Amino acid sequence: MREVAIIGIGQTKVGEHWEKSLRQLAAEAILAAIKDAKIERVDLLYVGNMLSGEVADQEHLGAAVADFAGLRTVEAYKIEAACASGAAALRQGYIAVAGGLADFVVVCGVEKVTDAPNPDVLAALALATDGEYERAHGLSLIALNAIIMRRYMHEYGYKQADFAAFSVNAHRNAVNNPYAMFRRPITEEAFAKARMVVEPINLLDSAPVADGAAALVLCPLVMAKDFTSKPVRIAASAAATDALALHDRKDLLFLEAACLSAKKAYELAGIGPQDVDFFELTDASTVMAALSLEAAGFAERGEGVRLAMEGEITLEGRIPISTMGGLKARGHPIGATGIYQAVEAVIQLRHEAGENQVRDAHWGLIQNIGGTGGTAITHILEGPD
Amino acid sequence: MREVAIIGIGQTKVGEHWEKSLRQLAAEAILAAIKDAKIERVDLLYVGNMLSGEVADQEHLGAAVADFAGLRTVEAYKIEAACASGAAALRQGYIAVAGGLADFVVVCGVEKVTDAPNPDVLAALALATDGEYERAHGLSLIALNAIIMRRYMHEYGYKQADFAAFSVNAHRNAVNNPYAMFRRPITEEAFAKARMVVEPINLLDSAPVADGAAALVLCPLVMAKDFTSKPVRIAASAAATDALALHDRKDLLFLEAACLSAKKAYELAGIGPQDVDFFELTDASTVMAALSLEAAGFAERGEGVRLAMEGEITLEGRIPISTMGGLKARGHPIGATGIYQAVEAVIQLRHEAGENQVRDAHWGLIQNIGGTGGTAITHILEGPD
Repeated sequence: MREVAIIGIGQTKVGEHWEKSLRQLAAEAILAAIKDAKIERVDLLYVGNMLSGEVADQEHLGAAVADFAGLRTVEAYKIEAACASGAAALRQGYIAVAGGLADFVVVCGVEKVTDAPNPDVLAALALATDGEYERAHGLSLIALNAIIMRRYMHEYGYKQADFAAFSVNAHRNAVNNPYAMFRRPITEEAFAKARMVVEPINLLDSAPVADGAAALVLCPLVMAKDFTSKPVRIAASAAATDALALHDRKDLLFLEAACLSAKKAYELAGIGPQDVDFFELTDASTVMAALSLEAAGFAERGEGVRLAMEGEITLEGRIPISTMGGLKARGHPIGATGIYQAVEAVIQLRHEAGENQVRDAHWGLIQNIGGTGGTAITHILEGPD
Repeated sequence: MREVAIIGIGQTKVGEHWEKSLRQLAAEAILAAIKDAKIERVDLLYVGNMLSGEVADQEHLGAAVADFAGLRTVEAYKIEAACASGAAALRQGYIAVAGGLADFVVVCGVEKVTDAPNPDVLAALALATDGEYERAHGLSLIALNAIIMRRYMHEYGYKQADFAAFSVNAHRNAVNNPYAMFRRPITEEAFAKARMVVEPINLLDSAPVADGAAALVLCPLVMAKDFTSKPVRIAASAAATDALALHDRKDLLFLEAACLSAKKAYELAGIGPQDVDFFELTDASTVMAALSLEAAGFAERGEGVRLAMEGEITLEGRIPISTMGGLKARGHPIGATGIYQAVEAVIQLRHEAGENQVRDAHWGLIQNIGGTGGTAITHILEGPD
């Protein structure tokens, strides 16, 4: 197997892109990544996306995006794994390059939701849950997050206000990210007063669904030096699944797929949580951020929220998370999120994160979770410095 | 790179499965394939599917199917490339095994359309076309096929009745396929009298969309002998794309992606059209069958229909096609079709096709086309005998 490097990144601003279609967003990110990488050939394109058919009037997305991005005839596919579709695309790109089946692979994550009415988008997003046992009964993704959060509070004795630290951190970090959706800080007071969405999850607790596209160029590490002085190595790529339905899980408060894929990733990279300099996790809601910290080995069970309360998740803390705003403040363009995480990690590892730079960042952990934990895909990236 | 073999196959009957859900169909095919292969471990699952989110209330399909098939925790993804989603899943499975990233990979194709009203299914199927330039104007997939057929008739001087040979052949071959949807022969007279769908395509010209699931087990060829005495080698795997919109193509009557992927496949396998013993192609309509024969090198341009009229596509002909009924008579469970093609090719190459056995079958060509040719994925399979 070959070592794989990321040699190019591209992203659009996350937000409500009324003036751009899905294919335009995707092409913008792809062309930016190709330009950044300075490659002249693309062998393979993977497009991570969840809802193009339901809310953006397009399936057959691989070929559609390839053509619009100037890559007509290039082999291309859409990969779907709910909110983890982005990392799923990255994972396929890694497999193709590591295995020697392709040299220059573009992976793109894209989602366009603002062309459809909001209730349709929420109903479509619930397709990430168990269709027969959860969605059929009217449970939305955020409602399932609320069930988990309520149980977490009950088991470990937290108040709703204790979760504020996650959102405060995310919003503070987004201020300096020009691609973020919400570039304004929030306070704990604002969090406490925010309108309830699904008790105990309020408006400042949950991540906003949005439009956006991000892209990466992968190639074998041995070829990377021809294109960039700052190749970022993919030190590990691993994934696992779990039951979609919460009632089928052994434990409501443990992300088994996240834990399995993180463990495998640490093993592959030969490092442990203590070596990780920052962690881009899937903070679709604050409780998911807490559970991710626990599943990836940064906190004991029930201690994820405490880690946040103690300031250890900030840029200066023990394990900085959501360093460019996370899902909460950068925004959550569903199937694109996993690629945004990777793009942001590359920026950190190239030491180009400006005011948000994690000092001496060398190992970045990114974990993209689908649904309430049914899919978890973990990558470990190693910077050039 | 490692040589890859297919060591297990499974399929459900194609048809209207009112009593079974999507996940049940998928699990049935997967469990049959695992049983056939006698494997005890699965490393990775790819699910080829186009419309689970639009008409079967489920995205996040990889994890959903993995769990229901008894493969909880196994890494799993949904792959979409319109009607070529099945072969797209096979292609990813091939990449993973060939590259050494996984040893035992299950690839499944599944589609469940009968839970949604028929007009919804047709509208969803049109998501395979260019959403902004074709579907937005009300063009369905079959209407685009009709445009192509009309032009083909005009350019090459055929009558509508000349296309009957494709459907007659497909229906005759389906009679002996217990998994086929339409197990009855049809005559040229019946074809001539069939109700028009979109002129010049009539009811007996176009393939029926249906429910179904099929699955394969892949592993490295060197390990295959431990599981079966009849491993089928994947001698080539190749894919290409083209513009989705017909008006963007250089030539309305040439399937460029099909030609490109077939050429590459021949090169990889080290054989040519003259060596191929049978060809499972994407006969979504008869004109697509003709264009596929031309793109894959079995007929000069404009001669595909003549090949059929002269009886060369039957089981005894120069290049047998749709040997178990093809899309027309086995049925077209959209995202599953590519895997049905592979399953049927394996049956032929194992010499287990009974009355439909192609004599001395050794090289099988399978080509799965998405939309009107926007994606084309070609595999060449080599039998053990």
